Amino acid sequence: MVEDVRIQRTRKDVTAAALEILLKSGWSAVTHGAVAKVSGYSRATLYAHWPCQLDLVRDAFSSYQQMPHFQATGDLKKDLTGELKSFVNAMTEFHLDRALAMLSEKSQVDEAITPIRDSFVAAGESPIRESLAKEFGGKKTEALTLMLCGMVTHSVLMHGTPPSSQIIEEAVSLVLAGIEARS
Amino acid sequence: MVEDVRIQRTRKDVTAAALEILLKSGWSAVTHGAVAKVSGYSRATLYAHWPCQLDLVRDAFSSYQQMPHFQATGDLKKDLTGELKSFVNAMTEFHLDRALAMLSEKSQVDEAITPIRDSFVAAGESPIRESLAKEFGGKKTEALTLMLCGMVTHSVLMHGTPPSSQIIEEAVSLVLAGIEARS
Repeated sequence: MVEDVRIQRTRKDVTAAALEILLKSGWSAVTHGAVAKVSGYSRATLYAHWPCQLDLVRDAFSSYQQMPHFQATGDLKKDLTGELKSFVNAMTEFHLDRALAMLSEKSQVDEAITPIRDSFVAAGESPIRESLAKEFGGKKTEALTLMLCGMVTHSVLMHGTPPSSQIIEEAVSLVLAGIEARS
Repeated sequence: MVEDVRIQRTRKDVTAAALEILLKSGWSAVTHGAVAKVSGYSRATLYAHWPCQLDLVRDAFSSYQQMPHFQATGDLKKDLTGELKSFVNAMTEFHLDRALAMLSEKSQVDEAITPIRDSFVAAGESPIRESLAKEFGGKKTEALTLMLCGMVTHSVLMHGTPPSSQIIEEAVSLVLAGIEARS
């Protein structure tokens, strides 16, 4: 029991240190030596639990799973708008823009990164995708998920700035009006 | 006159060599030495026309301006669908996915890259944005441009695969039905 708590604490501290280094100094700076220095744990401890550099990076990204999401209300328009605004908020507050850019760039040149990117993206999209899937079929859910999440990632990654709240509200209204008009 | 043609040819050859290296070996591989080797021009010639490494990279990206776009017909639904399919096509045919990922990642850590990214993205979005702006106001045009372009970039960069033609058609139908329903 005491052992478990200690392992959990180690994992938390090391993950936080790895994420800090990743966001500040980039992918290749996340070495066992650097993480040992920042976290205060020995290299031996790190190698025992995280044998490869990729293990450290994977856990750094997995810490985004604790990121806050919008508390769903059951009202689709409110839930989509609220979740997209949380998504925008995470871009600045948790440097999600940096994490997404690194994952997309690295997974193009190193196939070992693809599963990390895929689970990261699936977790990020899931509140939007699930809200939509409750109401619509597969094709509509897919098109809407890509457009709504894409509006945010495209704006952040390609324009360097997130969409305004006004644009998010406009987009959600438009797509929901489109669904209603065609049903 | 002869001189002009020669300079144009040099520029074309050097730009092609820089792009080839950029896509194959990454940003930092685009050095004067490497471009000289691939293009067959001397380093002295390269330094005369492209004093910095960034000049070589900028011209490599600018070669995407010759990328083919959909020939607009005046029918909004056809034009949006056609242009989005051209956009998808360029991802594989011209490694546009690689170019976008590198530009978004690099411009986060080096402000000198931002203007290169911005003019690249503005040129890429312009057929979609212009088709929309002919019919709709600023807010609708912005929301639709971000959603439609974002659907493609999000899918390619975050899922590693472009949206299918079916999903593109579904998305365009939905947003246009939404516009019509609300107008």
